[in-house]
Amino acid sequence: MIEVVDSLAEARAVLRRGPAPTALVATMGALHAGHQSLITAARARAAQVAVTVFVNPLQFNNPEDLARYPRTLEADVAACAEAGADLVIAPSVEDVYPTWPELPPTEVHVGPLGSVLEGASRPGHFNGMATVVVALLAALQPDLALFGEKDLQQLAIVRQVVRDLHLPVEIVGVATSREPDGLARSSRNVRLSPEAREAATALWQALRRAQARLDREPQVRGVDLEAEMAAVLLNAGPLVEPDYAVALDAETLAPHPGPVGTAKVALAVAAVVGGVRLIDNLADATASQA
Amino acid sequence: MIEVVDSLAEARAVLRRGPAPTALVATMGALHAGHQSLITAARARAAQVAVTVFVNPLQFNNPEDLARYPRTLEADVAACAEAGADLVIAPSVEDVYPTWPELPPTEVHVGPLGSVLEGASRPGHFNGMATVVVALLAALQPDLALFGEKDLQQLAIVRQVVRDLHLPVEIVGVATSREPDGLARSSRNVRLSPEAREAATALWQALRRAQARLDREPQVRGVDLEAEMAAVLLNAGPLVEPDYAVALDAETLAPHPGPVGTAKVALAVAAVVGGVRLIDNLADATASQA
Repeated sequence: MIEVVDSLAEARAVLRRGPAPTALVATMGALHAGHQSLITAARARAAQVAVTVFVNPLQFNNPEDLARYPRTLEADVAACAEAGADLVIAPSVEDVYPTWPELPPTEVHVGPLGSVLEGASRPGHFNGMATVVVALLAALQPDLALFGEKDLQQLAIVRQVVRDLHLPVEIVGVATSREPDGLARSSRNVRLSPEAREAATALWQALRRAQARLDREPQVRGVDLEAEMAAVLLNAGPLVEPDYAVALDAETLAPHPGPVGTAKVALAVAAVVGGVRLIDNLADATASQA
Repeated sequence: MIEVVDSLAEARAVLRRGPAPTALVATMGALHAGHQSLITAARARAAQVAVTVFVNPLQFNNPEDLARYPRTLEADVAACAEAGADLVIAPSVEDVYPTWPELPPTEVHVGPLGSVLEGASRPGHFNGMATVVVALLAALQPDLALFGEKDLQQLAIVRQVVRDLHLPVEIVGVATSREPDGLARSSRNVRLSPEAREAATALWQALRRAQARLDREPQVRGVDLEAEMAAVLLNAGPLVEPDYAVALDAETLAPHPGPVGTAKVALAVAAVVGGVRLIDNLADATASQA
């Protein structure tokens, strides 16, 4: 039987009473099969699996986006139960941020990694994400916390913050859950029209094309992989407006324009498809060379 | 027998093996009787007392100040032993900041409270302080951490950060340790010439004068208390250059210009005395009214 609590303090008490190790999956709700794959991965590693459902106001740039973000707690609890979670934590904003409705004066700043890629168009987003992740990890003290590779930049930033602030938790990245045609699972996919849904596979096709080139030609340059991906996106029809298609150092997410060789390289793409902004990536495009 | 370790990971292992509760006193070394009073207070409350000695480069605005900051580990260990600590933790900069000599990209920002009073002349100082305190608390996981009321703003900021980031630690403020003539103990006092040492009592006298006025006249305004303190500092002779003399809300450190009444008010002063900048305060000037 899944338990649902509405405060972090109560959740910590529940986790302390139960067996270790404990695992945390932090979400903003609107759960889909992608989140469930995080819960499944947590289940395989931990004796207790907790899922937070918290729409974090700090990581929205736009009050309208925050207001219209879907809140579907009942369905989320069912999805958590189905995937094998033990505990759903759905705290109020006041529980997480005691100064609310004033913003918390304390904020975790993540530095340069927060300003590139997704951060370029969302100032403050990753600081807000990091602030809530630190608060959740400190309040709940899980042994493990699992994050999807789908949000590659978020995962890299969480790893950086946990390292820099010495948080005693193991961060586990989980491979992206995909539809049969390769589209990465995302809460945003339901907003795609049938035509846009079809066109959206261009992101995955772009990544696969670059991956195939790298497999054939391990010394290919990052800029050439970027050109491969851009070509796929640009030829995907009028519904697809490419934003970026980049080859990155897999650890630092710094640009990797030169020959790949023995480096560990990530590929990342973003495009607006029929009005919906989508992202996808290969967290380690070099892995399939082995 | 006091134990000395040079890494946070090793310190955590030592603390885990020993009895709870554990208490942390975070210092930058150059220990004096004021620090020892923190250790004594920790000893009275905890089964294990750990003292960190770490000159935190993030909280210096000036590389020269950092370079000339005294490093006296052997004497510090003796002072810790004398005061009853169990463990001294003297980590390297690389141990605390894994990216060193590059600055850690992650930084804890403390908001408005970091920009007033001491923060006005030291941009970034309190963010650097908060960053290392969060790292030390996360790495060492003490049950209690003790900070001196001498650094009133630091204590208020630590309380804010611990609250906002949900760090599972109790913050304990310890009354300022004073010389027989009232001068607050500080590492800087050794830099005072005999004449400046004598003049330096003006800070304590200013606080006492305002306190006496408040005792006589509980409805006095904050601005009147400020005038009392300023008058003492301005009349203390040519060696004393006043910086500020302020009445503050004791919790938020916001200015409290109006009648004191039932409010909890702190008084804080700062002055350069013979070239050495000194601070002092009454964390709760209203307490003696009771």
